[in-house]
Amino acid sequence: MTSFSTPLPISGETRLFAIVGDPIAQARSPSVFNALFAARGANAVLVPMQVPASQLRCAIGGLKCIANLDGIVVTVPHKVSVVELLDEIGPVARRVGAVNCMRRRPDGRWGGEMFDGEGFVAGLQREGMPVAGRHVFQAGCGGAGKAVAHALAAAGVASLHLVDAKPELAQALIASLRQHHPQLAVHTGDAPGAGHDLLVNATPCGMAPGDPMPFDLRDAASGAVVAELIMKPERTRLLDAASARGHRIHLGRHLLESQAALVARYFGLCD
Amino acid sequence: MTSFSTPLPISGETRLFAIVGDPIAQARSPSVFNALFAARGANAVLVPMQVPASQLRCAIGGLKCIANLDGIVVTVPHKVSVVELLDEIGPVARRVGAVNCMRRRPDGRWGGEMFDGEGFVAGLQREGMPVAGRHVFQAGCGGAGKAVAHALAAAGVASLHLVDAKPELAQALIASLRQHHPQLAVHTGDAPGAGHDLLVNATPCGMAPGDPMPFDLRDAASGAVVAELIMKPERTRLLDAASARGHRIHLGRHLLESQAALVARYFGLCD
Repeated sequence: MTSFSTPLPISGETRLFAIVGDPIAQARSPSVFNALFAARGANAVLVPMQVPASQLRCAIGGLKCIANLDGIVVTVPHKVSVVELLDEIGPVARRVGAVNCMRRRPDGRWGGEMFDGEGFVAGLQREGMPVAGRHVFQAGCGGAGKAVAHALAAAGVASLHLVDAKPELAQALIASLRQHHPQLAVHTGDAPGAGHDLLVNATPCGMAPGDPMPFDLRDAASGAVVAELIMKPERTRLLDAASARGHRIHLGRHLLESQAALVARYFGLCD
Repeated sequence: MTSFSTPLPISGETRLFAIVGDPIAQARSPSVFNALFAARGANAVLVPMQVPASQLRCAIGGLKCIANLDGIVVTVPHKVSVVELLDEIGPVARRVGAVNCMRRRPDGRWGGEMFDGEGFVAGLQREGMPVAGRHVFQAGCGGAGKAVAHALAAAGVASLHLVDAKPELAQALIASLRQHHPQLAVHTGDAPGAGHDLLVNATPCGMAPGDPMPFDLRDAASGAVVAELIMKPERTRLLDAASARGHRIHLGRHLLESQAALVARYFGLCD
């Protein structure tokens, strides 16, 4: 799936979807979702909506009043704060404490769920790198990190080594993972040790030009995959370094593409 | 301008516009406006939003919180009720007591204006039937009729004969016209007399298949133009009868097309 321009006739019968975030100009979801809708022949459109954090309650309240608006993709900074505006949230959202999408249910109530982690895992799978059985090192245990770690655990990784600049975030995520996946080996510590064959950057470190490496690649297994959640820049310093060391790399944009298919299905629009 | 499918890439930077009404499935504004935006190279999209009357306040309140939403086309049944949700309305809207569009001003306040009447007059002009100097018979003095009569008066018709099934509506409109156009000859009465050279149907009579004629064509001048505001069906019983009698006819859709250009300019998007 690419972000090409799609002929998209909008009529009075078009079903409406939105992505809500702030800022929104950088959002790639409109092109990704609209290409997906067009490919499936759905008379639907997803449009960008810039909503400041202070206006979220008012905006979501209004959007719920629009009868042909069936679903909303939720992005930064609203993924956690929108939860209290929903009537119910799904099992992953409950574990992670955040949603990345919401939909109108047939009874008129609004539900939400979190597909960022599942999208990340599906993207790796689609790129020929299934995660089951892998020994994973993950830096970053915030919102995105929680979603990814829970999805990796659900997808059957062999072990998870979690670190965060705030150690209490890593500890909290480990406690949550142990509750839902008691058999899984989960650890924390300062740096990746030897033996990891999937290394994941779930920190924002790498978005800004001068950022340091989010973690060291020195001890990574020779066949290890190095994966980013950062979408912009597409090639981070971490990915360049990993590539130079002969590792297979995985781009952040694959998350969005795989997640969009999951969210579209959640919206009831695609198989 | 036609309602063809237009290639319309939507990105995170796309400016957002909406048409708000109930029902909305029949609305032609999305195709008309999006073709207009595309022709002008504007990175903007207009989407349909179905908002029940009981939800208008909530929906408009929410839409005002969306920072990249710059304007809203307002249609039935909200044209009058939305006025109280605006910070200011334009001169035509004040005379008519209704708006057909609203926009965010540079200071963040919301203004509204009514272009239905001006759109009707511009459509006649564009079709080669200027209204200045004409002797007009108009049936229907409700929302649409008020807008049309004021626009006809402003465009310099010679006389206006107004009727409505509710005579008090005709009287009220005549009083308002006399206030703003003291020189104009305005009358009321049961039926068109002789000498009218523009006959306008501003009633809903003609929308349903079994509807009677909204007025009699017996005394219409031989070169008279017969004009509809009804868009669906495109050819009403009145237009068929007028055509059969050799009158030139004017379709309701011309209003929408000419009005869209005026509204797009009000939105700041087109010249």
